[in-house]
Amino acid sequence: MDLAHILHMNGGVDEASYANNSSLQRTTISLAKPSRLRAITNLYCSLFPRSLAVADLGCSSGLNTLLVISEIINVVEKLCQELNHESPEYKVFLNDLPGNDFNNVFRSLETFKEKLCNEIGPCYFFGVPGSFYGRIFPYQSLHFIHASCSLHWLSKVPKGVDNNKGNIYLATTSPSNVFKAYYEQFHRDLSLFLKCRAQELVEGGCMVITFLVRECDNPSSYGWELLAMALNDMVMQGIIEEEKLNTFNIPIYFPSPSEIKVEVLTEESFDINGFQVSQVNRNDLDNCNAVDLFQMSETLAKCARAVIEPLLISHFGEGVTEEVFNRYKNILQGGIFKEKNEATNLTITLTKKP
Amino acid sequence: MDLAHILHMNGGVDEASYANNSSLQRTTISLAKPSRLRAITNLYCSLFPRSLAVADLGCSSGLNTLLVISEIINVVEKLCQELNHESPEYKVFLNDLPGNDFNNVFRSLETFKEKLCNEIGPCYFFGVPGSFYGRIFPYQSLHFIHASCSLHWLSKVPKGVDNNKGNIYLATTSPSNVFKAYYEQFHRDLSLFLKCRAQELVEGGCMVITFLVRECDNPSSYGWELLAMALNDMVMQGIIEEEKLNTFNIPIYFPSPSEIKVEVLTEESFDINGFQVSQVNRNDLDNCNAVDLFQMSETLAKCARAVIEPLLISHFGEGVTEEVFNRYKNILQGGIFKEKNEATNLTITLTKKP
Repeated sequence: MDLAHILHMNGGVDEASYANNSSLQRTTISLAKPSRLRAITNLYCSLFPRSLAVADLGCSSGLNTLLVISEIINVVEKLCQELNHESPEYKVFLNDLPGNDFNNVFRSLETFKEKLCNEIGPCYFFGVPGSFYGRIFPYQSLHFIHASCSLHWLSKVPKGVDNNKGNIYLATTSPSNVFKAYYEQFHRDLSLFLKCRAQELVEGGCMVITFLVRECDNPSSYGWELLAMALNDMVMQGIIEEEKLNTFNIPIYFPSPSEIKVEVLTEESFDINGFQVSQVNRNDLDNCNAVDLFQMSETLAKCARAVIEPLLISHFGEGVTEEVFNRYKNILQGGIFKEKNEATNLTITLTKKP
Repeated sequence: MDLAHILHMNGGVDEASYANNSSLQRTTISLAKPSRLRAITNLYCSLFPRSLAVADLGCSSGLNTLLVISEIINVVEKLCQELNHESPEYKVFLNDLPGNDFNNVFRSLETFKEKLCNEIGPCYFFGVPGSFYGRIFPYQSLHFIHASCSLHWLSKVPKGVDNNKGNIYLATTSPSNVFKAYYEQFHRDLSLFLKCRAQELVEGGCMVITFLVRECDNPSSYGWELLAMALNDMVMQGIIEEEKLNTFNIPIYFPSPSEIKVEVLTEESFDINGFQVSQVNRNDLDNCNAVDLFQMSETLAKCARAVIEPLLISHFGEGVTEEVFNRYKNILQGGIFKEKNEATNLTITLTKKP
């Protein structure tokens, strides 16, 4: 089955939902706020659109979705007041894969939209199901694109990683061809993403994108290695078939900032107007304010579950995931997690070349 | 709670779903096919849009949603071939209330969209949550609007129907003020619908709308009276509180063809280009091909359930609806249903005045 049909964050609003376990993503969004304000101000003051089309790519479900939209509209409204302009008509496009919980997005949108329309005037909202590694919007129909914490998802599991046995992502024991395959997939995907967006944006249109990036040269991930450890334990105990584990690879790639820069420069559709790397201390996040190992492990396991559970269910079946994440949490609580509990974030601002 | 948050057809794809119990609506859609073909041909040949924006209002979930869209695109494609034109870019907007099962729509859209894009070229799909008794699209952004079997739903239960005790809709025993209140609500809603659509359509843009209408002067509905009978029985047996039943009224109005014509002529935004009344024999529908009373009753009860259950749940609670529709089916099977099993359909084609 196509990844676009399987991949989605956990829907709904319950304990395991993405909506309740996305504080890292929310922090990343607030880190990029100054870049967005600058970009949207420049955009408005150079184009003065009567109808402003904004898209959020990888909107998922939950509060994060609407945070950025209301912020953008507020900035433009303030500019309009200062410049004595009439408010533009706002068109807001919320995109994610078709498996996303759009029902939840649309239901939470209602009050938000009502308030906005009463305070500001006409705002129109659209759900756009589909992979952003392909055209999803009409030609030159957007002014501003926002994408946060979504571009580390690849369009598919890279081809030629059959020998990544026992691992579920790039790991210290992964063969070199696996590293190459993941990088190649990232390269093809990001390059296609840029090409598509260049066709969809109006001239002078811009994007602010945040990436979860790595700081070191080695793209293997210790966090996913620990999840693989939980799965390997379950193979040893006969709960999961070895073959099942050997054929499971997560379609994610955490690029380095320079890998991203190279793609943008090579693809040539966009000028880079901003490029800012920053740290997110995950212990400071609102759901994770205790520094004790117990709570941190619990939070990390929940966050991983909210984003990866649908993929696990699709591959291993419904029955095992509760057990997988319990074991993962226990491994984390065992104190084996030696890395700093930090994530690195890149915010990049791109303007479409004339 | 606002009706727009409660009202929706039964979601999903199970036995009680709208997707599996909407053959009347599907027949209505095929009855209106000649009108749609004529309208879309005229539209294309007078505007030759490079980007064609089509909206389905009240798309619900299930097969019906995509039937009309593919038909419209096929007509335009054929015209393009005949006239040796390049295909336009298609923008398809699927609208319904926020409670609609958009997840189901978006998931079933994927294969459809892929096939379409491979065969034809760029097609873009958007979900538009919101009540069509208000602006939901930007100014002059649509070429063609389709709405089938959705405009008999009112925007809310009419005010001033408190004395419609024991009834759930207009019934032979309803006081005259209740008839007046329902009519007034229909009048306000349809007039607002026309005003909003006139703002959203480009000049020369058009709409093809099908209504379930009544043929007689009296707008009371025998079918809903029988459902009320089931509910009254349950009040008598203490399963439902009398006060609960007395405060339940269905926000529907089945207008007569002339009531609709009067609204369009009075509102003045549209020219009437087509006005066709036809009969649908419900015994001929695919889910209802047996003429025996048993199967017919079962089908009628299922169809009523698919459209009205969420309203009943919201008012009476989750626990009673199974029982309500069992009793309703039994009443129908008792042979009490004396009306012809026919529905009357009006297809109206409207073009925005210059």
